[in-house]
Amino acid sequence: MAINQKEAIKYNHKHLLGIQYLSIPEVNLILDESLAFVELNRQENKKLKILNGKTQINLFFETSTRTLSSFELAGKRLGADVMNMNVLHSAIKKGETLIDTAMTLNAMHPDILVIRHQDSGAANLLSQKVNCAVINAGDGRNEHPTQALLDAMTIKMKKGKIEGLRVAICGDIMHSRVARSNIYLLNMLGAEVRVIGPSTLMPKNIDAFGVKVFTNMEQGLEDCDIIMMLRMQTERMDGSYIPSTREYYEFFGLDYKKIKNAKEDALIMHPGPMNRGIEIDTSLADDINRSIIVQQVEMGVAVRMACLKILMESKQ
Amino acid sequence: MAINQKEAIKYNHKHLLGIQYLSIPEVNLILDESLAFVELNRQENKKLKILNGKTQINLFFETSTRTLSSFELAGKRLGADVMNMNVLHSAIKKGETLIDTAMTLNAMHPDILVIRHQDSGAANLLSQKVNCAVINAGDGRNEHPTQALLDAMTIKMKKGKIEGLRVAICGDIMHSRVARSNIYLLNMLGAEVRVIGPSTLMPKNIDAFGVKVFTNMEQGLEDCDIIMMLRMQTERMDGSYIPSTREYYEFFGLDYKKIKNAKEDALIMHPGPMNRGIEIDTSLADDINRSIIVQQVEMGVAVRMACLKILMESKQ
Amino acid sequence: MAINQKEAIKYNHKHLLGIQYLSIPEVNLILDESLAFVELNRQENKKLKILNGKTQINLFFETSTRTLSSFELAGKRLGADVMNMNVLHSAIKKGETLIDTAMTLNAMHPDILVIRHQDSGAANLLSQKVNCAVINAGDGRNEHPTQALLDAMTIKMKKGKIEGLRVAICGDIMHSRVARSNIYLLNMLGAEVRVIGPSTLMPKNIDAFGVKVFTNMEQGLEDCDIIMMLRMQTERMDGSYIPSTREYYEFFGLDYKKIKNAKEDALIMHPGPMNRGIEIDTSLADDINRSIIVQQVEMGVAVRMACLKILMESKQ
Repeated sequence: MAINQKEAIKYNHKHLLGIQYLSIPEVNLILDESLAFVELNRQENKKLKILNGKTQINLFFETSTRTLSSFELAGKRLGADVMNMNVLHSAIKKGETLIDTAMTLNAMHPDILVIRHQDSGAANLLSQKVNCAVINAGDGRNEHPTQALLDAMTIKMKKGKIEGLRVAICGDIMHSRVARSNIYLLNMLGAEVRVIGPSTLMPKNIDAFGVKVFTNMEQGLEDCDIIMMLRMQTERMDGSYIPSTREYYEFFGLDYKKIKNAKEDALIMHPGPMNRGIEIDTSLADDINRSIIVQQVEMGVAVRMACLKILMESKQ
Repeated sequence: MAINQKEAIKYNHKHLLGIQYLSIPEVNLILDESLAFVELNRQENKKLKILNGKTQINLFFETSTRTLSSFELAGKRLGADVMNMNVLHSAIKKGETLIDTAMTLNAMHPDILVIRHQDSGAANLLSQKVNCAVINAGDGRNEHPTQALLDAMTIKMKKGKIEGLRVAICGDIMHSRVARSNIYLLNMLGAEVRVIGPSTLMPKNIDAFGVKVFTNMEQGLEDCDIIMMLRMQTERMDGSYIPSTREYYEFFGLDYKKIKNAKEDALIMHPGPMNRGIEIDTSLADDINRSIIVQQVEMGVAVRMACLKILMESKQ
Repeated sequence: MAINQKEAIKYNHKHLLGIQYLSIPEVNLILDESLAFVELNRQENKKLKILNGKTQINLFFETSTRTLSSFELAGKRLGADVMNMNVLHSAIKKGETLIDTAMTLNAMHPDILVIRHQDSGAANLLSQKVNCAVINAGDGRNEHPTQALLDAMTIKMKKGKIEGLRVAICGDIMHSRVARSNIYLLNMLGAEVRVIGPSTLMPKNIDAFGVKVFTNMEQGLEDCDIIMMLRMQTERMDGSYIPSTREYYEFFGLDYKKIKNAKEDALIMHPGPMNRGIEIDTSLADDINRSIIVQQVEMGVAVRMACLKILMESKQ
């Protein structure tokens, strides 16, 4: 029945804290809603009134260019009043003060708080202290749900489906919330997920994630449809995790030679910003037959618009 | 006569520079207008068009999270175009350059300039150089009028009145514009104002302020209805003003033991951000039967909306 | 014929990268359109809907107060969604990464990108990589076209014309994009342009610019109608370009004595921010019979509104 069906695809949460809390229908709802916003963003007039009268606060404890911009534009294009909070990392004492900041902001009656924080669990903690909807824009090594959703949207737009695809996530799996959220989501949507990286950058409990683990790039990339490269954080490059960036590139940097192991029509993704010449060959990154990195950014704004809209609707 | 009455409650200034320049009817006008905005901010749709077509510039020479956010949201919710000026303290040479900055901004035809500056008198100086309305968001040790107004609004909402209440302001009275503006306002509205703090942090001319001075917390808190804690600035903690933060907390930090000297239903306020464990016990700060600190933040947005509205109306 | 005339004054570019690419009719179109915005900005209601639904991103790689503010207000008053990108100079690796940033922003579908960058040619490079209109808000030593346009607008408002005026540009010609853009524009509009400065701060190819060169202030100022002072960058003051700031002021600082060489009604301009007492006497800078520095700021917002409007119209 139509009514049941419509109820089935309701979003049943107050917040968007992680992919691990979402159901398949909820994910599909977000991806379906995103499509309209992809179209909107390509038009001359990109402005709606859906969030008129609403207040969105972007509370970023880590510097970010693209994620913050993406959320800011998403909110503004939906008509919300958007405020960015410049939180200097050094000025914040951890623990209680995040809560004090949360309580303060909450008293200003925002409707949506978008938070990025260096500590895993920060978004969950915040969500327990405020009345408004909280979106996790990345918390420590835990989750970055809108990144995984925009990645899924990008794959769907380019490949027409996700189910049955072989996806390799490559690089610093251990420290990556992008990897974690993508593993949850791609598994949920029926992809075959592989992770590839040096053993020093592989989480100890990786077996629990339901993925195939490779420490050899050529083997891992075999017959892959999608290759997701992760950003190598500069703070991991001091020798304790990898011998040198040159050696890392030699073994784990994606180049035209290694990509031959993947399918002929394999596509490359990267959450950005890229370290060209470290995790990815610079020509390959710009190869419009291979790289869908800019499409990820485009999908990012659309997916975040969908998330903002759905959270405001489910509130009512 | 109704007409006279209406004239009596007109706001008769171009600017809002300090509580010391306001009359009782003007204060009451602001507090009365704030009430509608308290209600508005609690609704789903928090947007008005009162300031459509107006430009508000927030010019903050000192870093601030809550005051800047509060003014930004206040202006946006009233429909103004709001611009924050990031003024790096180091990049500014004092004196003339404040005026150059003022003249530059003035030439852009803002309608409202909200200024925070480390020097006492900066807002007054600015107001003499520009055509638009100036709101003092804190100038040196001088005044912070919207803080005092939001504090008065909070007390009124919680206690139903201000007249006749015994209010203790505790901590670093000497360096505090919050204390100064609150002393002016609470005296004006008929409260009995006490100040409590170590003698090293008491202004020399404190007798001129019409308050009772205490250097003993237990005595000062006796039968108080309201306890306003001030933030201890970290730069005062180096030993020249107080022996140590531990000793300061022992004698002047508000805890469950000292608060017993106040009335049973005494309420605690703090302008934020708090130094938990230095000027206030952390449990007490979160005690919803005692602490009205988050209500202060809520009233802050509403009071600032009222100030913006009234200044734009009195201009016409 | 009216139709031909109308076609003649069309703006024929997608971008605004430099004065050197503009024709006289295009310049006049911008100045004519600016006039309406000068009026608008002086009114109570300063808001239009011309850019509703459009996204303007201000991408500033150099810190700036007045240019960024001017563009931000211009966009907001025209109804655009305006986003400022905080690009920390240190966090950006040159060359490719500007392109990566450009590609990322482009994928978010902005309509206008306003860029300031420390490298000459950055705006041109960016314009080749994005679909939207690019406005150069200053690139290295190359151009700063909106500054020259606002300067021309200011002269026109004050003197009624530009043709036939004698204009002296004084100071650090070599490093100045303001000088470069003004030389192009003033020459184009029929002014007689002179440059004055120490030989160490004069570009080697200055003869190619069609200006008269003076290293003596008194001679250079003779019978001038307009005196444009340039900002002396503090990084030039270390002795390699000028012996000392005191000596510089003695020979090239504009004061009441030197200005006597100019016409009696000569007017003083400065792009700001001023170094009072280094390139200009502080009283003279504030002399409302001489200085039209604040008018430049006022014209700045209007001219930028005209540029934004024209670029959006020429796009359709």
